[in-house]
Amino acid sequence: MALIVQKYGGTSVGSVERIAQVAEKVIATRSQGHEVVVVVSAMSGETNRLVALAKSVADPPKEREFDVLLATGEQVTISLLSIALEARGCPARSYTGAQVRILTDSAHTKARILDIDDQNIRADLAQGIVVVVAGFQGVDEPGNITTLGRGGSDTTAVALAAALKADECQIYTDVDGVYTTDPRVVPNARRLEQICFEEMLEMASLGSKVLQIRSVEFASKYNVPLRVLSSFEDGPGTLIAPEDKSMEQALISGIAFNRDEAKLTLLGVPDKPGVAAQILSQIAAANIEVDMIIQNIGADGTTTDFTFTVHRNDYKKALGILQGLAPSLGMREVRGDDQIVKVSIIGVGMRSHAGIASTMFQALANEGINIQLISTSEIKISVVVHEKYLELAVRVLHAAFNLDKAA
Amino acid sequence: MALIVQKYGGTSVGSVERIAQVAEKVIATRSQGHEVVVVVSAMSGETNRLVALAKSVADPPKEREFDVLLATGEQVTISLLSIALEARGCPARSYTGAQVRILTDSAHTKARILDIDDQNIRADLAQGIVVVVAGFQGVDEPGNITTLGRGGSDTTAVALAAALKADECQIYTDVDGVYTTDPRVVPNARRLEQICFEEMLEMASLGSKVLQIRSVEFASKYNVPLRVLSSFEDGPGTLIAPEDKSMEQALISGIAFNRDEAKLTLLGVPDKPGVAAQILSQIAAANIEVDMIIQNIGADGTTTDFTFTVHRNDYKKALGILQGLAPSLGMREVRGDDQIVKVSIIGVGMRSHAGIASTMFQALANEGINIQLISTSEIKISVVVHEKYLELAVRVLHAAFNLDKAA
Repeated sequence: MALIVQKYGGTSVGSVERIAQVAEKVIATRSQGHEVVVVVSAMSGETNRLVALAKSVADPPKEREFDVLLATGEQVTISLLSIALEARGCPARSYTGAQVRILTDSAHTKARILDIDDQNIRADLAQGIVVVVAGFQGVDEPGNITTLGRGGSDTTAVALAAALKADECQIYTDVDGVYTTDPRVVPNARRLEQICFEEMLEMASLGSKVLQIRSVEFASKYNVPLRVLSSFEDGPGTLIAPEDKSMEQALISGIAFNRDEAKLTLLGVPDKPGVAAQILSQIAAANIEVDMIIQNIGADGTTTDFTFTVHRNDYKKALGILQGLAPSLGMREVRGDDQIVKVSIIGVGMRSHAGIASTMFQALANEGINIQLISTSEIKISVVVHEKYLELAVRVLHAAFNLDKAA
Repeated sequence: MALIVQKYGGTSVGSVERIAQVAEKVIATRSQGHEVVVVVSAMSGETNRLVALAKSVADPPKEREFDVLLATGEQVTISLLSIALEARGCPARSYTGAQVRILTDSAHTKARILDIDDQNIRADLAQGIVVVVAGFQGVDEPGNITTLGRGGSDTTAVALAAALKADECQIYTDVDGVYTTDPRVVPNARRLEQICFEEMLEMASLGSKVLQIRSVEFASKYNVPLRVLSSFEDGPGTLIAPEDKSMEQALISGIAFNRDEAKLTLLGVPDKPGVAAQILSQIAAANIEVDMIIQNIGADGTTTDFTFTVHRNDYKKALGILQGLAPSLGMREVRGDDQIVKVSIIGVGMRSHAGIASTMFQALANEGINIQLISTSEIKISVVVHEKYLELAVRVLHAAFNLDKAA
């Protein structure tokens, strides 16, 4: 007997019929002898409806009150799923965030979970009751309703799994697992049986939208095995778990890419301490998030060339800031390009294997793809190329590392 | 400075525009220097939508979970009203029943309020914050969400006013006050400036649907002055308050009527102890509510004639029960009539004035209206007449007691 936390997103509970299907899935898991805690999101479309309602009253709405409104979305779902379970003879009990007592800080609309009281849930599980918890919401110390922001229901599920020391946290989505890369770009992309947390973090942060990065971080921190599965078809999904030292690692697990990048380069920046900080603090003050940062010694030896990438939406704003800064910093030139993409290969296996980078660069060179920027981490190599090469680069790399074949 | 509890029903908060109007009314009250606590219902139509949603999942839905669903209706309204108030520069804070801590028993869908914690509300009011409370809902001792059933938001408002020792509890509705009788029957019916609790209870129980009887009982018990007002037009409404001994009382305050009555008569029932109880216990066991009960000595001196009235919907069922009982009780005959109505005159003034009954009976006799049954209480005289006389009887009595003129 295992304790399993299952999370169903908005699409999975998007109608009365789909809620009935979720009830059947929960009952199937329970009838295998497992204890089940279910975390649900608001029915798809409901959160948008509530947001529009609030904004028709005032925009922006007062955040404390906005959270009170948004929290009703999940409260509707926990009730309906519990009604569906009970009607099928399965004892069930719903909990709002406040009822569990998912304690958060007071940062309305983007609260962080501080603590979870597992007492009531454990008592229910011990009696064979399926526990249905509202995702995305909590309560702060004085008792105000809070919401967790984007991907909050995944975070709730992982945090609950951690608090309950669950055997597995299953995230049901509209895809059947994590793929070596986007199957729309590479048709023979392969579903991974297993991937480790670090790899999943790199995949998620580079634009694979299967899981919210925050919930993967949480799962990694508390060592909660995560599994991504489809709510619409049966299958094992992909297990995201701690790195398994005993197994031969695949060199590369997947290829991620990001279409929405733009790069900015400052040429001939005086090479003295504090310059990089001075530039980036101005960018940060404008609420622009910086992705890659690369610095190289300039051709003359006394200046440096400094490049960073931002989201394409922030490109013009960032360019304006740099052009304003240029005279006071004494730099030679500011250049920018918003027709670039980032492509990355990811794999914990590259830690212990040389030659990965050269395989990557050679494969791209064979197709005449010019590499504009390179950045590396322990388990990732990213390159920036012209956007016209995106699909070609991903396909070439997928083939070069034999990702269509199981490791 | 007074502390005022205002309650707005579903129609009054039925759209974003109406919520804006309610916000303006609340702000107007506050700018007169008052402390304001607002109780709101779900937006009109919302509760029906939620009921339909639950029943599409399972019918009947599990009651505990049904309450979780229904409670979201008022939670949406408290949020939107608070957002509207804040957007107009008025500090506001919403509370669900659980957040106030409106403690109820655990009778889901028809819970009773046991206690109200006024600590948080008082702290907010002291800071000049308008407190917005979800009507109709509470929380039981273990923390389950409960709802109060029909008229629950009125009950919440009155209970809060009692707990806070408010100066007045204002119930905003779609009528502008309590009338001497139904203006659809008597066009010159007059809005009452004031009426006492006992009179209002008689008016409410006899079919004037302005206020739920439970909230009037509550207000009477805790001596909370109630005021019924229109949410759509300005005006003083009707104050429902303890009987004011210092004022000259109007003889009669109003005329109530009930169209949905049917009468059942048992003729020649043996006049011995326990017979009435035996009959009525069978009726009660069938969940039939009895309204008037009248017993008279029969013509032969050894038997009695026994009559009672029930809701017209229960007439056939009650008649069947009595016909089944007749042989064992040794009664002569069972008669019934479902073409009757009840008309009542109500007024605390009749306590100290003789001749009210004769004025009533003479007025009806003048129009040839035959009185079938008479029942009296300290502040009410009810008669049963044929249903064809309803409008005529009400008009005649309204004129006979000069109800179109202020007392």
